[in-house]
Amino acid sequence: MGKPRVVVVGAGFAGLQCARRLDGRPVDVLLVDRCNYHLFTPLLYQVATCLLTPSDIAIPLRKVFRGSPNVRFRQAGVVGVDLDAKRIRTDEDGHIGYDRLVLAAGSESNYFANGGIERNSIGLKSLPEALALRNHTLRCLEEATASTSDVADWLTFVVAGGGPTGVEYAGALAELARLVLPLEYPEVPANLFRIVLVEGRERLLPQLSEASSRHALRALERRGVEVHTSTFVSDADAKRVRLSDGTEIAARTLVWSAGVRPTDLVAFVHGRPDGGRIQVDSRLGIEGRTDAVAIGDAAAVRWDEGELPMLAPPAMQEGRYVAARILALDAGSDTEPFVYKDKGTMATIGRSAAVVELGPLHISGFAGWVLWLLIHLYYLIGFKNRLQVLTSWAWNYVRYDRPIRIDIAADRTADGLVPSPRAQSSSS
Amino acid sequence: MGKPRVVVVGAGFAGLQCARRLDGRPVDVLLVDRCNYHLFTPLLYQVATCLLTPSDIAIPLRKVFRGSPNVRFRQAGVVGVDLDAKRIRTDEDGHIGYDRLVLAAGSESNYFANGGIERNSIGLKSLPEALALRNHTLRCLEEATASTSDVADWLTFVVAGGGPTGVEYAGALAELARLVLPLEYPEVPANLFRIVLVEGRERLLPQLSEASSRHALRALERRGVEVHTSTFVSDADAKRVRLSDGTEIAARTLVWSAGVRPTDLVAFVHGRPDGGRIQVDSRLGIEGRTDAVAIGDAAAVRWDEGELPMLAPPAMQEGRYVAARILALDAGSDTEPFVYKDKGTMATIGRSAAVVELGPLHISGFAGWVLWLLIHLYYLIGFKNRLQVLTSWAWNYVRYDRPIRIDIAADRTADGLVPSPRAQSSSS
Repeated sequence: MGKPRVVVVGAGFAGLQCARRLDGRPVDVLLVDRCNYHLFTPLLYQVATCLLTPSDIAIPLRKVFRGSPNVRFRQAGVVGVDLDAKRIRTDEDGHIGYDRLVLAAGSESNYFANGGIERNSIGLKSLPEALALRNHTLRCLEEATASTSDVADWLTFVVAGGGPTGVEYAGALAELARLVLPLEYPEVPANLFRIVLVEGRERLLPQLSEASSRHALRALERRGVEVHTSTFVSDADAKRVRLSDGTEIAARTLVWSAGVRPTDLVAFVHGRPDGGRIQVDSRLGIEGRTDAVAIGDAAAVRWDEGELPMLAPPAMQEGRYVAARILALDAGSDTEPFVYKDKGTMATIGRSAAVVELGPLHISGFAGWVLWLLIHLYYLIGFKNRLQVLTSWAWNYVRYDRPIRIDIAADRTADGLVPSPRAQSSSS
Repeated sequence: MGKPRVVVVGAGFAGLQCARRLDGRPVDVLLVDRCNYHLFTPLLYQVATCLLTPSDIAIPLRKVFRGSPNVRFRQAGVVGVDLDAKRIRTDEDGHIGYDRLVLAAGSESNYFANGGIERNSIGLKSLPEALALRNHTLRCLEEATASTSDVADWLTFVVAGGGPTGVEYAGALAELARLVLPLEYPEVPANLFRIVLVEGRERLLPQLSEASSRHALRALERRGVEVHTSTFVSDADAKRVRLSDGTEIAARTLVWSAGVRPTDLVAFVHGRPDGGRIQVDSRLGIEGRTDAVAIGDAAAVRWDEGELPMLAPPAMQEGRYVAARILALDAGSDTEPFVYKDKGTMATIGRSAAVVELGPLHISGFAGWVLWLLIHLYYLIGFKNRLQVLTSWAWNYVRYDRPIRIDIAADRTADGLVPSPRAQSSSS
């Protein structure tokens, strides 16, 4: 009899931590993800704002498990899970059977069924989205230099959502504009550049203390960001964004960081299409099972009065927990129920400004910013990535630069050969 | 009366050199290119083979001319030139008038009117092409692990063209496979990996001496590359490549480096659709004009018995020459006719192997390789790019690694807002 086969669906923070903990242990692991890389999503906004390059924050999964005796990778989308037959269905490979399933299928942007917003906004959940946003931003600046009538529209950016992603992105975008516009776009009146950050609740970063919220608000306002709280984006088309208070903003860019939801896959497993997370028991089992667990954004893990938030720290702890539990179950025992250790929350607003809360310790300003840098570097996987990111940060800190400002036209991949992209080649 | 307005079409090696030489001089320069960056094309094959990242070899044009008093940039495609009315037509901005025109519109892949090859191959002339090739290559390796019947087809790469691009790409691809396959794709029989390099003339690198050709051939064969000379690719579909000798190769990848031709724009200017270069006089003027010159791949500059080759060194020298000529003409004089100084040719075949010919000096092996590195670093624009490329090369030399192996799905850019790429987001 072979070793038990563990199938891990999703190589985000939850799935990757689980697979790493099972590396070299007496199980056969198959890690399945639609992408061939693990993405360090907390720094995605730095790709969108020309500070880091994609390979700084993405590491090939086969490299992570290079030489691993018992972890294999399969690049495929998962489109179905049959808990009774103990198998998953992929978009190209047919069925894959398992002895134990770890469902870490992650989340995607939640547009709350508003098609206008979905069609006319860019999310910040994936690398293609971050690159699309970078290209679009650079294109907007170019359009503003060439345009005669709607310069202000091209220079107006509405950011929906005042959580860490929205706050960090808005701060970084303000710095990009401040560093680049006056020096490199003399044709553009820099005072027309406008960032509007919209948050539905009554303050920014509602996960943090009121003092940190105020600190973030002041830091953003110092950078020229307009902040609207107790307001949400109600609709959008290609040229306008409408807010819940009736305001209409002429803008060519809407960045959506106002909500995430579990992937469609989760609704499918769960048997209900409401987009909720998978209910799990105190040991993260699905419907009381021991052979199928759910972790990360996909799983509704009870905590305090509600559920754990869709963030990296709970996902990583859950990933490590289920790895330990699988080994315990295989050895005939079981682990204690999962307990989340809250290690804090943080957000950076830009150069030398961040808010960090580690339990009772609240740090803001320059010290908070340095702490933010160190913690993010520590969690970034791969020594070379750390070195490159550190170099980029240091370089840009000293030089006040945003070097990665290249607008790369789409490259289209097909199943077989790629259509010749001659039409887009650099011919002028 | 204002300063004369010089419009430079194209920011490749020729156009960029010209604009840099006119920086700070008594002319107003408008540099027009479809891309917002200058691309160091000689290293494009290293992006396609996962060694360098796009921003290592692309530098934003606005950054090059940051703070320049008299050089402006416009991102646009040029679709027409009216030499008599002294204006160009762009794809979005209408007409742009000039006092002096520098046409440096470059070249694109030449498929010799073979639609099958054009549809079923990937070129190596632009950044989107290099990224498409990188994504496609990684996808092929994944398909080989998942496939049961056509593993060998996914692992067969046909490279058309044995000039510097084809030779360097084939060598780099062989190293990528050798470094990555055994360690990270244990499911794949590495001996099925196959590279076929096809050259129509009787030897590789026909620009170089016969000794260098033989050296390159041996270096490639040591790396397992099959070389077919006096043979060309006659047709291709999605699964097969046909050679002129009747051979049919089952392959999912055809890389096209077998020919370039001037862009369509050139044929349009020239008034003849034969795809030839623009005929220029001994001072690079078009049809004897002093107010319009053509340089780089777009221009047929007489040399020896024929024309200067479509390479970076002639393009750069021509760019500098026409800048000097424009200043001389404005001062009421003119320059001597253009004379090309041949500084040599070179190609690298991979780790510690290159052939370099600098006049009478022929260097191959490790010394040639170091020289190749130094010369390429020297010509790479931007101090940070040099530093990053040097770091990447050093790292990969020491670690035997190809770190940039991330397959980023297409990001689609539109004129206005970008369609939400949710369907491709990392959801499994």
